Amino acid sequence: MLGTGTVGRTIAGKLRDLGHDVLVGSRSAGDDAVPFADAAAHGELVFNCTNGNASLEALNAAGAENLAGKTLVEVANVIDASRGRPFVIGVSLDDSLGEQIQRAFPEARVVKALNTVNANVMVDPAIVPGAHDLFVCGNDAEAKEQVGELLQSFGWPAERIVDLGDITAARGQELYLALWLSLMSAAGGAAFNIHLAR
Amino acid sequence: MLGTGTVGRTIAGKLRDLGHDVLVGSRSAGDDAVPFADAAAHGELVFNCTNGNASLEALNAAGAENLAGKTLVEVANVIDASRGRPFVIGVSLDDSLGEQIQRAFPEARVVKALNTVNANVMVDPAIVPGAHDLFVCGNDAEAKEQVGELLQSFGWPAERIVDLGDITAARGQELYLALWLSLMSAAGGAAFNIHLAR
Repeated sequence: MLGTGTVGRTIAGKLRDLGHDVLVGSRSAGDDAVPFADAAAHGELVFNCTNGNASLEALNAAGAENLAGKTLVEVANVIDASRGRPFVIGVSLDDSLGEQIQRAFPEARVVKALNTVNANVMVDPAIVPGAHDLFVCGNDAEAKEQVGELLQSFGWPAERIVDLGDITAARGQELYLALWLSLMSAAGGAAFNIHLAR
Repeated sequence: MLGTGTVGRTIAGKLRDLGHDVLVGSRSAGDDAVPFADAAAHGELVFNCTNGNASLEALNAAGAENLAGKTLVEVANVIDASRGRPFVIGVSLDDSLGEQIQRAFPEARVVKALNTVNANVMVDPAIVPGAHDLFVCGNDAEAKEQVGELLQSFGWPAERIVDLGDITAARGQELYLALWLSLMSAAGGAAFNIHLAR
């Protein structure tokens, strides 16, 4: 696990509850965190739950050699809150953090997932009533399958995990956060999600 | 009605079915369309269903004097298909067409609505099974109420029309189109929508 924010700690806790051996990496290490490179070297599978504005730096610290051949679950969002509300979301209209990371680490098997819901919903989807969906994308079918199985162990039914295609679909998953912020106001909290009705 | 594309013609047809007196405006007029200014002058309520890349030009042709004090239902999306797929969506990360139009026509009461679903779904939401939601935003509460009543006459239940706040929420409604395009591929067609599960 890369990242010691709410998302990183929540997912790491869930993974440990499920019996996985997890090392949490952070820039400064200390407490119960190790350096990024140690956490990445330890993991068979690596989660990027760092702040999206610092993810490329964090992954560089983790080291390409510690990510090569591994599934990298890319959960980060890029949020610029410096100009107040509405927060500015995303890296650009024609790119995404998921794509940037896949380009920077071509040997990692990047799967964008989980960034469209609140941390509590990520690891306990049943807190939102009714059917609602999670989106995954990435260039490697096997890695998406592996992430799908992990998400099912978190409580996401297989039929609620929607494969959006290759990593360029990360644009939609990331830019959606702009709508998510408005929906959070309308829903009166972060315990919500969207369902694909068709 | 400003715009003679699929969206404009579909909504204009629905409005006529409901007994409204509709003039459709286009840049070139001819056939059953009149100049933008004539259509805007005629309407108590004006729909912008022009191509998002040309909407400001179309509204300038319609004339600020023909929009002043009126509810302007802003349905357009900005799509750049010139670089192939994935299409590039939106005007920028920190602005939206809805906001641009409200700034350019401060006396119009802009309500962003309907741009998050396909034209057929706009006027016949029942073609998508189950509960699913439509989003509106704008600075004028009375205008949003008026649009909400019109949407109910299209078949949208009142409880499925979600008010996202002021016109800055148009960013989320517009940038969502990037996700919508991926969802269209996953859903295998455009007859879908999202439901806010909470």
